[in-house]
Amino acid sequence: MNELAYSPSGIITILTDFGLLDPYVAIMKGVIYSRFSKATLVDITHLIAPQNIVQGAFTLGNTAPWFPSGTVHLAVVDPGVGTARRSLVALVRDQIVVAPDNGLVWPLLEASQDWHCYALTRIDLFSGPVSPTFHGRDVFAPVAAALASGAVQPRDCGPEIDPEQLRLPEPQVGEQLLEGEVVGFDHYGNIFTNICDTHLPVARGRLEIVVAGRRVDRYVRTYGEAKSGVVIALVNSFGTLEIACAQGNAKETLGINLGEPVHVHW
Amino acid sequence: MNELAYSPSGIITILTDFGLLDPYVAIMKGVIYSRFSKATLVDITHLIAPQNIVQGAFTLGNTAPWFPSGTVHLAVVDPGVGTARRSLVALVRDQIVVAPDNGLVWPLLEASQDWHCYALTRIDLFSGPVSPTFHGRDVFAPVAAALASGAVQPRDCGPEIDPEQLRLPEPQVGEQLLEGEVVGFDHYGNIFTNICDTHLPVARGRLEIVVAGRRVDRYVRTYGEAKSGVVIALVNSFGTLEIACAQGNAKETLGINLGEPVHVHW
Amino acid sequence: MNELAYSPSGIITILTDFGLLDPYVAIMKGVIYSRFSKATLVDITHLIAPQNIVQGAFTLGNTAPWFPSGTVHLAVVDPGVGTARRSLVALVRDQIVVAPDNGLVWPLLEASQDWHCYALTRIDLFSGPVSPTFHGRDVFAPVAAALASGAVQPRDCGPEIDPEQLRLPEPQVGEQLLEGEVVGFDHYGNIFTNICDTHLPVARGRLEIVVAGRRVDRYVRTYGEAKSGVVIALVNSFGTLEIACAQGNAKETLGINLGEPVHVHW
Repeated sequence: MNELAYSPSGIITILTDFGLLDPYVAIMKGVIYSRFSKATLVDITHLIAPQNIVQGAFTLGNTAPWFPSGTVHLAVVDPGVGTARRSLVALVRDQIVVAPDNGLVWPLLEASQDWHCYALTRIDLFSGPVSPTFHGRDVFAPVAAALASGAVQPRDCGPEIDPEQLRLPEPQVGEQLLEGEVVGFDHYGNIFTNICDTHLPVARGRLEIVVAGRRVDRYVRTYGEAKSGVVIALVNSFGTLEIACAQGNAKETLGINLGEPVHVHW
Repeated sequence: MNELAYSPSGIITILTDFGLLDPYVAIMKGVIYSRFSKATLVDITHLIAPQNIVQGAFTLGNTAPWFPSGTVHLAVVDPGVGTARRSLVALVRDQIVVAPDNGLVWPLLEASQDWHCYALTRIDLFSGPVSPTFHGRDVFAPVAAALASGAVQPRDCGPEIDPEQLRLPEPQVGEQLLEGEVVGFDHYGNIFTNICDTHLPVARGRLEIVVAGRRVDRYVRTYGEAKSGVVIALVNSFGTLEIACAQGNAKETLGINLGEPVHVHW
Repeated sequence: MNELAYSPSGIITILTDFGLLDPYVAIMKGVIYSRFSKATLVDITHLIAPQNIVQGAFTLGNTAPWFPSGTVHLAVVDPGVGTARRSLVALVRDQIVVAPDNGLVWPLLEASQDWHCYALTRIDLFSGPVSPTFHGRDVFAPVAAALASGAVQPRDCGPEIDPEQLRLPEPQVGEQLLEGEVVGFDHYGNIFTNICDTHLPVARGRLEIVVAGRRVDRYVRTYGEAKSGVVIALVNSFGTLEIACAQGNAKETLGINLGEPVHVHW
């Protein structure tokens, strides 16, 4: 590990559960530009379900690795805003995350294995007086601007800490058998599972996959291989097993909910 | 007041009721970049309810002050597009608004008290021929680009005018009593009122707050102070009294509509 | 035609059916910035209905002409991702489109009449290994970055091809009579038809317009000319005949669906 790895790119991504109607996101952008006029801002999403830390954490973990070295990720899903929960700055390989210390950054840390976390205690970096209900504006945005501009380094933001962890459901691995579960859905109604490409056998011609009691019709490489309406399984672009309905919406067609079982055997 | 206060930052914010499906916003951005390639564009929101000038005006007023000096705000909620309604350029302290003259800019002007408004009559700045249905593209976007690039000053855009005003509901202030109303909701279902922090007494331990006949359980500093489901009141990050449901959606839980009464006494 | 017409502006627009919840769009942006840090990114829309190539094609065709010379349009509505369908780079006048070869670019080509299309076969430009389910990330984004940065020209991307076409419904033109149909709706519930300004007679005072059996009340220049609730017809900012409901939602008020007949006579 190298605490000096961070050299800013000027890019700040923003991930929140603030939605798209209210001006909360734009206000954070105004604060950032007021302090670092050359920032390049990129929205990851603002449609994380309100207060859903797990969904935000998965999304951040899947997205951050595709950004350049020196990117600052500003992530705010923060049901504990204004209470005793800590704020943190994480140096993750050559990128930074600024976020509440509530597990939001944990999947990204786990995947990288090369990180340092610092409690965000440098109140001189905040925009005062700090509102007890909107740390995105008064704490996280100004600190992200300071880090992205190179004015401060992560280790300047406060003492090193062990961050809050997030316990996520792991699949059970048996004899030619995997027992996982549904962990999310995308915009198309594709069903995400917690079963990874690496859990599956090399030869996949004889996989039997059952989601919530419904047998999947075919294992395929990509959506377009099956005719409209066929229920398919594939390894998606995040490297996890996904259940889909060719040219359709699997979540609605199959009536699947979060947490329902996904069994694979061969 | 100083008519020379404006020095462009290159930032243009955009606020509309155009929604996120149609290409209207992107077309305005194309027009801006065609005329000022170094513009920095920031979306405030495009989900203002169709033709809801009051909602757009509140949102603009709450957001603009967080942007840097020299920002141009391009705001289009414009039920009267193509009719005799005027267009205006407002110099508000050290920022500019380009908008239809229908009250959209009024709350921002009222809060700043340091402004000049000019009718937008310089048709040579427009992108002709001007469509009678899309002044965002043919009038407001090219003028915003000209102002943000420094090619023109607000006073160059037309004669000074008194802009249209917007009459907003004011709370009634009595003896240890406030009678206000519900003026909006955010993405979380938090309920906005027209009662300001400054209307409330310093000591708030004994506030009794009733919204649409429902007694609020507790007055708090921030959402996380109450257990899940408790109905709370607090002063939000805009400095106004807000009713919320801890870790829940107050609008849905309480079944509250716009305009319902909010009574506070102590 | 001039194959050397393209000089990059650095602007990349993005149009997809990926929605706003998932990180697919942000991941493409991360890939672009990783390869071309000075890109200027503009979202056209990500709310094209899943797999609706026609809707995406119309939107791209209506939007691209408003962007500067040298813009790269990255368009992904791609039900055939990972199958034998080709990918293409189109040089359209002085702009570029990077897209699957499934008709998505056809209306823009038809309108411009000055274009060359190249099959995208330069796998050294891709981000490998290429996922069979997300060419937006691994094929289209890196190629768009290479084109927008000036690292490659369209003709460097592969052999010239005849692209897939899109057959769109054309209105029937009779004696003082037009028979068209409903081809779309916008966010306000305005109804788009396939009848163009140029199909209509110069004198419009006596137009009789019927949509799905409902007589339109008035032909107007702009929305604000009619009182609330009146059903109006006008030529919109794209130059096509539109049916609207003054200060209302025509789609909902009239209960209109895609493909319903629109008759005009005079």
